[in-house]
Amino acid sequence: MSITFYYTPHTSASRVHWVLEELGVPYDKVKLDLRAGDQHKPEFLAINPNGKVPALVVDGTPLFESLAIILYLGDRFGVDKGLWPRVGSSEYAEALSWSVWGSVTLGGTIFRIFFNTSEWFPADSRNALQAEAATKEFEAALKVLDQRLQGREYLVGSGFTLVDAANAAALAWALSFIKTDIAAYPAVGAWIERCVSRPANRAVEAG
Amino acid sequence: MSITFYYTPHTSASRVHWVLEELGVPYDKVKLDLRAGDQHKPEFLAINPNGKVPALVVDGTPLFESLAIILYLGDRFGVDKGLWPRVGSSEYAEALSWSVWGSVTLGGTIFRIFFNTSEWFPADSRNALQAEAATKEFEAALKVLDQRLQGREYLVGSGFTLVDAANAAALAWALSFIKTDIAAYPAVGAWIERCVSRPANRAVEAG
Ligand SMILES: N[C@@H](CCC(=O)N[C@@H](CS)C(=O)NCC(=O)O)C(=O)O
Ligand SMILES: N[C@@H](CCC(=O)N[C@@H](CS)C(=O)NCC(=O)O)C(=O)O
Repeated sequence: MSITFYYTPHTSASRVHWVLEELGVPYDKVKLDLRAGDQHKPEFLAINPNGKVPALVVDGTPLFESLAIILYLGDRFGVDKGLWPRVGSSEYAEALSWSVWGSVTLGGTIFRIFFNTSEWFPADSRNALQAEAATKEFEAALKVLDQRLQGREYLVGSGFTLVDAANAAALAWALSFIKTDIAAYPAVGAWIERCVSRPANRAVEAG
Repeated sequence: MSITFYYTPHTSASRVHWVLEELGVPYDKVKLDLRAGDQHKPEFLAINPNGKVPALVVDGTPLFESLAIILYLGDRFGVDKGLWPRVGSSEYAEALSWSVWGSVTLGGTIFRIFFNTSEWFPADSRNALQAEAATKEFEAALKVLDQRLQGREYLVGSGFTLVDAANAAALAWALSFIKTDIAAYPAVGAWIERCVSRPANRAVEAG
């Protein structure tokens, strides 16, 4: 089996990197220089036609979208290691729901705030009222997460799974630029810390 | 086996409804009146803590997020019917990539346009420049899709799969309010028509 991971540090690829380290599967890394335009080269576009990191090639088959890659790796390598529920279990249904929720619902509000507050975008394309409305939705999502984490250490089942990595990575990034008092969601704050302090994530952060 | 489908017509639930009809599995329907606030009732929040449609309960296990529900139904009921690739095949990797792409990348640009153009939102929370930038990204996504569909009738493998339903439903909705000349993406236009004209979708549209 061969796995090649295409990535750039400190991007959407980082949560996949974390997941690969948790799984302990052997893989080769190819670092793309986004400023130099590596993502637009024909050989990379043949893998991900969107020209974005991350991408993964498993035995010649390309995958793109960080969520798709995590779902694939979970099914294929996570079950035996207790990092992903077995297809057909009720935890499997929960893992799918919460993983997609993190990328679509939570992720959607995070990007809406980002587009309306970040200096990456022209000032006249940002709207403070929209950022405010999106921040309210972000806080509603934090509340849903906080309730889910009442009396549980992790999102699905009794131990850490890739669902936690996928969501905690997105939230840790979000909280670096969204002005929200995380102390109002104590179960979420404790859970993020529990997740991001895992050796696999620290190894990725260290580069 | 028992399946209960919680939905409201003409919402994110519609693509799940379409998928259930394609699969031909027996299910019960519960229609929620969103204006009356059915989605905020404790018995529904116990199924989907976000208070949104769609939701699905399979043998007592709740699922939420339309994409998660489609992935679950595909794995569980779609493989034997040729509507979903078998786990581990290269088509399976492609199905995950394109399904997630539809909800996250394509879906993300669609919602960004929606938030910045729709009269559902206060005029002073909308930004025309942001809508313009998002429309460029939407058109870039249509181009990626058009290239994918060169020489193929459907997104993955050789026949219609649930990946097509998931993406075509989102796009048909998007094209109802985004001013883009779909004729510039002829393979996409023909594919949408091929998908939405299927009897399973027409049955859902007819209500
Ligand atoms: N939804 C995608 C997002 C991928 C994405 O936007 N990647 C960025 C870095 S965070 C990228 O490669 N940008 C390069 C470019 O747009 O040229 C995922 O989760 O994989
Ligand atoms: N990402 C979710 C979106 C669900 C969603 O936003 N549903 C809307 C209808 S399209 C809803 O139930 N809204 C009711 C409310 O917000 O009160 C999915 O794909 O299932």
